[in-house]
Amino acid sequence: MTLRVLGVDPGLTRCGLGVVDVAANRRATLVEVGVVGTAASESLDARLLAIDAAVEQWLDRHQPDVLAVERVFSQLNVSTVMGTAQASGVVIAAAARRGIAVALHTPTEVKAAVTGNGQADKGSVARMVVRILRLSEAPTPADAADALALAITHAWRSGLSAAAASAAASPSRSGAAAAARSSQRVPSGALTAAQLLWVQAEASARQAGHGRRHR
Amino acid sequence: MTLRVLGVDPGLTRCGLGVVDVAANRRATLVEVGVVGTAASESLDARLLAIDAAVEQWLDRHQPDVLAVERVFSQLNVSTVMGTAQASGVVIAAAARRGIAVALHTPTEVKAAVTGNGQADKGSVARMVVRILRLSEAPTPADAADALALAITHAWRSGLSAAAASAAASPSRSGAAAAARSSQRVPSGALTAAQLLWVQAEASARQAGHGRRHR
Repeated sequence: MTLRVLGVDPGLTRCGLGVVDVAANRRATLVEVGVVGTAASESLDARLLAIDAAVEQWLDRHQPDVLAVERVFSQLNVSTVMGTAQASGVVIAAAARRGIAVALHTPTEVKAAVTGNGQADKGSVARMVVRILRLSEAPTPADAADALALAITHAWRSGLSAAAASAAASPSRSGAAAAARSSQRVPSGALTAAQLLWVQAEASARQAGHGRRHR
Repeated sequence: MTLRVLGVDPGLTRCGLGVVDVAANRRATLVEVGVVGTAASESLDARLLAIDAAVEQWLDRHQPDVLAVERVFSQLNVSTVMGTAQASGVVIAAAARRGIAVALHTPTEVKAAVTGNGQADKGSVARMVVRILRLSEAPTPADAADALALAITHAWRSGLSAAAASAAASPSRSGAAAAARSSQRVPSGALTAAQLLWVQAEASARQAGHGRRHR
């Protein structure tokens, strides 16, 4: 039982794409990683079309259970944030057209999930992605590593949702209840059937003493 | 010879859509106007999907020559600007998938084109849209009127590009040359065959003494 997540780090100049399969015991395996980029000299419609086409191809090729995208904030670099937001809109709509669930995670959530530190730098995130996926070297550019980190984060956090559900059934497990509070941004209503199955499997693995969180 | 423009004022809560046919003599006629909206309680992917589906329907139904969208800036209301940008990305990609030209205009350009004043308020823009399209009352909500104003602006400004081209051929027409400078944001390379034909017809009408600008 694995959950396949396509993580996307949106951007007009470089849009990172990473597919990861995550097992119920949290073991994550790289499926494919890459970057699609367009030149700033191209028109906005041509740039967004290139991203749309790339995401469609990746969705066709990998049939992910979920698409995980970075939640964009207007506080970021104002010169590029509008293009990033437009690219993320295109990516999200492409998944939605196919009925694929979309999950949003903040950069802080991603850093915390893969390194244990919400303020970690890009290098630390990339090094943990290498370790978690048992790679020989860091995927480049950074956007590719970020896409993989997003995918891993989503799988691990939605696993915590399962712990939350079982915690609600048995209130004595306060650790799981705390985990539940920390993962409220992924409403269970947004889970697909495949995710729910995975989440149940993950909860079983956890109860069996496996599935310790990577920190 | 008319140019059909679909103007879109993007937004997650209210996305204005307006189709206008503009003749070579600048006479503009309303084809359809409407608004698609989604509740803030819906998920982001559901909201973007609704906009994607609406734009696809409008493109199917009206087969516009051009799609005109407001150029979004990060200086606007930060709480809504990211959603607006994401919606605009979806709208632009939908047109690009069909090979329909996409034109971006700033709010100032739109206000200046329809009212003659780049600082005009929303009420003035709506009143001029009513007058230009010979309507009995203002389209509501404001997003609908804004979409129509965008469509009119695009048709009129791309017409000015033609005047620019002929001005380059005959430097004595300084008025047209000035118009050329003011419309540099619509590169002629972005014009479709239909637009180019329209633009030539518009230039002929102008030389015959018609086509006075609505101000």
